[in-house]
Amino acid sequence: MSAVARHLTVSLAQHSYEIHIGSGLMAEAQRYSDVSRRALRIITDSHLAALHLPALLAAFDLKSEQVFVIDAGEPSKSWATAERVLDWMLSQKLSRDAVLIAFGGGVIGDMAGFCAAIYQRGIEFVQVPTTLLSMVDSSVGGKTGVNHARGKNLIGAFHQPRAVIADLDLLKTLPRRELSAGAAEIIKYGMLGDAAFFEQLEGGAIDQLMALHGETSAAVVERCCALKAAIVAEDEFETTGKRALLNLGHTFGHAVETYTGYTQWLHGEAVGLGLAMAADLSARLDWISAKEAERCMQLVARAGLPIRPPAGMQPADFRRLMAADKKVAAGQLRLVLLKRLGEAVLTTDFDDVKLGDTLAHFCH
Amino acid sequence: MSAVARHLTVSLAQHSYEIHIGSGLMAEAQRYSDVSRRALRIITDSHLAALHLPALLAAFDLKSEQVFVIDAGEPSKSWATAERVLDWMLSQKLSRDAVLIAFGGGVIGDMAGFCAAIYQRGIEFVQVPTTLLSMVDSSVGGKTGVNHARGKNLIGAFHQPRAVIADLDLLKTLPRRELSAGAAEIIKYGMLGDAAFFEQLEGGAIDQLMALHGETSAAVVERCCALKAAIVAEDEFETTGKRALLNLGHTFGHAVETYTGYTQWLHGEAVGLGLAMAADLSARLDWISAKEAERCMQLVARAGLPIRPPAGMQPADFRRLMAADKKVAAGQLRLVLLKRLGEAVLTTDFDDVKLGDTLAHFCH
Repeated sequence: MSAVARHLTVSLAQHSYEIHIGSGLMAEAQRYSDVSRRALRIITDSHLAALHLPALLAAFDLKSEQVFVIDAGEPSKSWATAERVLDWMLSQKLSRDAVLIAFGGGVIGDMAGFCAAIYQRGIEFVQVPTTLLSMVDSSVGGKTGVNHARGKNLIGAFHQPRAVIADLDLLKTLPRRELSAGAAEIIKYGMLGDAAFFEQLEGGAIDQLMALHGETSAAVVERCCALKAAIVAEDEFETTGKRALLNLGHTFGHAVETYTGYTQWLHGEAVGLGLAMAADLSARLDWISAKEAERCMQLVARAGLPIRPPAGMQPADFRRLMAADKKVAAGQLRLVLLKRLGEAVLTTDFDDVKLGDTLAHFCH
Repeated sequence: MSAVARHLTVSLAQHSYEIHIGSGLMAEAQRYSDVSRRALRIITDSHLAALHLPALLAAFDLKSEQVFVIDAGEPSKSWATAERVLDWMLSQKLSRDAVLIAFGGGVIGDMAGFCAAIYQRGIEFVQVPTTLLSMVDSSVGGKTGVNHARGKNLIGAFHQPRAVIADLDLLKTLPRRELSAGAAEIIKYGMLGDAAFFEQLEGGAIDQLMALHGETSAAVVERCCALKAAIVAEDEFETTGKRALLNLGHTFGHAVETYTGYTQWLHGEAVGLGLAMAADLSARLDWISAKEAERCMQLVARAGLPIRPPAGMQPADFRRLMAADKKVAAGQLRLVLLKRLGEAVLTTDFDDVKLGDTLAHFCH
């Protein structure tokens, strides 16, 4: 199959790179990675290895002993697994000129990126995201890291990839529930930064995306990557507050994930609910209309995402868990809310009673 | 005691910072760190805590539970210790706004710098070097990391400090052997980059330094930091080869360290011998004169450093261990040698027979 790819440049001060998006890109992965005559090694997980190992080896012209397979799932995103990956990389005698390929979703991208960041003080890596969520979110922006018993992503580094290759064909083996989880982040981009894009999603793009329509999927992924790249370019190291806007829906969502022990809800599912809640609160503050908040909730539901908290979760649970959020400053809860549809703001300036109303409304 | 300090700026693209050098600086460490109203924590080792803990707590206005003490010695520079330090930092609930103080020699600076680099994707840290070697070498340049069973510094990151505070009073408690080890790196700077500085050392500065004469020590440390800073500014991430010049003497030295299992020779002692060997080979290649090579060896000896390999170490041992050096490219040994006194070059272009002559001469 001949690849028709879209290409997007992420422009950063010292580390600009290309994102390639399209169908059939795996066959040309070496060219897009621009890694000729470099030592390559792949990090992937057991689930993906079972599905794609032969294609992966062929794409990069590698042997199976040049691939390190970690157990699929979030528990692998740990300090202990990073040590195993680094031990393996050292056993392979990789020099600083080697390139690591991260083939997988967010866990693999974050783990392989972190290991690339600290192997001999940093080697290059290429992101080959295999989930919709990692294509539009975690593979872009250079955040890498592992979890800690005290919280997610507490150890890590900013380390930009050499290239990102988003082959939409990989989505064909993705469970539908994970497709929905990716759609949540996509809806997020429309809500926080691009009302016209939000309207395209409403106009049918969200359904075509869920049906894996090729052209629409490519256009949607490209738009999300462009929106994220623009924000990352403004705030590469998360110091100005701009990057925090990408957390729209996440403070509510993290509360749900923590309440359910990170085992029942996918991250994107929790974010989807969080988007609906952030829109609801924004409407109660009269920043957006009730109609716009309703449209946000409808779009979330249409992507197959839950719009109610887990059974039994009460407003007090949200309050307690949200108070532990990283965005709390000087004891005051900060939220990303909508000043209008298509424009988000990080703020402490909201009526706490209205927040109570939103929590009560969703937890009824 | 009123502090008279010398100040030097390290100019890097995104992370310029100041090095402060002088006596009595600890008393003004907070001001030089420029960390008012920031959460501070100190990483140090058991040896230094026994000597300096009260002064350290007073200098930074901290309590003893805000200091993390690791065992003194190179074995602490490990992945496992990094995990303990990070666990402790998380238990202290440090935000990304916190600043870590590295109070110690190279092990502490490398370890604390690495933990700062990967704590919540990077927080700031201040180097307070306590050894002559770390004042002139490891605290400048942003190299951080830990050792691995397969070799030294194999895991790490480039992470520049917020400031470096070199209080020369701390050298008063430094064992004489470690003072000599620091002097080796000082002689190295003269040999590789500044013939006039080399002549100042020969003219008596080396003896005044070993006697801890205040003004001379400050001038010498400042000159070395300036020489290193200029090289680091040209090659922050060790990509152009320029930074490799700082490894003058190190390929011979690493062979000695590996041969003796890293337990008998201090790093600086091995480097001192390596400087004499590099100068000898440079003379055999007719790049410098035999007289100049002799002057290098004399200066190394005058600093109290060994100029003979460990008993029993043969030319074949050097050959075998040097072949494992990181600077080997495409199977060919690369060495930093002297084109002239005050000018080093990284090269594969030397007669292997001459290298054999140097090894035989020193191993006789």
